[in-house]
Amino acid sequence: MKKVEHIGIAVKNFSEANGLYYKLLGAEPYKTEYVDSEGVNTSFFKVGDTKIELLEATNPDSAIAKFIEKRGEGIHHIAFEVEDIIAEMERLKQEGFTLLNEQPKNGADNKLVCFVHPKSAHGVLVELTQEIK
Amino acid sequence: MKKVEHIGIAVKNFSEANGLYYKLLGAEPYKTEYVDSEGVNTSFFKVGDTKIELLEATNPDSAIAKFIEKRGEGIHHIAFEVEDIIAEMERLKQEGFTLLNEQPKNGADNKLVCFVHPKSAHGVLVELTQEIK
Repeated sequence: MKKVEHIGIAVKNFSEANGLYYKLLGAEPYKTEYVDSEGVNTSFFKVGDTKIELLEATNPDSAIAKFIEKRGEGIHHIAFEVEDIIAEMERLKQEGFTLLNEQPKNGADNKLVCFVHPKSAHGVLVELTQEIK
Repeated sequence: MKKVEHIGIAVKNFSEANGLYYKLLGAEPYKTEYVDSEGVNTSFFKVGDTKIELLEATNPDSAIAKFIEKRGEGIHHIAFEVEDIIAEMERLKQEGFTLLNEQPKNGADNKLVCFVHPKSAHGVLVELTQEIK
């Protein structure tokens, strides 16, 4: 894993949360993006070499809607940047981790992504990300 | 906020979790430390410019024990590095955030720390850290 690419935070009210994280971090989101495949609105704040991603569900079937229903708002996942997502997925499978998708899929912010099951990582939803060049 | 200093993860079994995060991150913890004031064992993994901190409760009154009892294992907090913790605490109070300690206290890894109430930040426990020089 090269670095923590971002930390994803599930929120109920996107505009309210964007305002609050602007106050907390002292910086505006550099990007907001609707990700149709995941049913989410996302915004990204740069903090040093990593990012905070706020996620708001846009429909009740979105994983973010289900997460908030079950656990309330809060930290949803940690995303690590990798050089070669296919190789890293293979390595983690060999190590016994359970992947949530068999092939990389398109995520927000111009990335190929794959999720690792939280049961594999002591309750942490881990995302692998590789930049699409 | 200068950067994400670390991400704290609450775990039940320290040695098992250290082994698993070694496999996940491909690196051993560079440090383990018992923090008496918080009732926790901690280990730190370097990933790029930030760190993953695993936390295991050493007594049932520890905040980590209570967190796990309520929510299970998982991501516990995000720590941001600040230049001047006193100034940042004052700024956040003015912005309406609720601080969990009125004065900075000694944390793990040679830091002064202050926590911001999760209700202030959409369910996220935020830690401010300033290195002790």
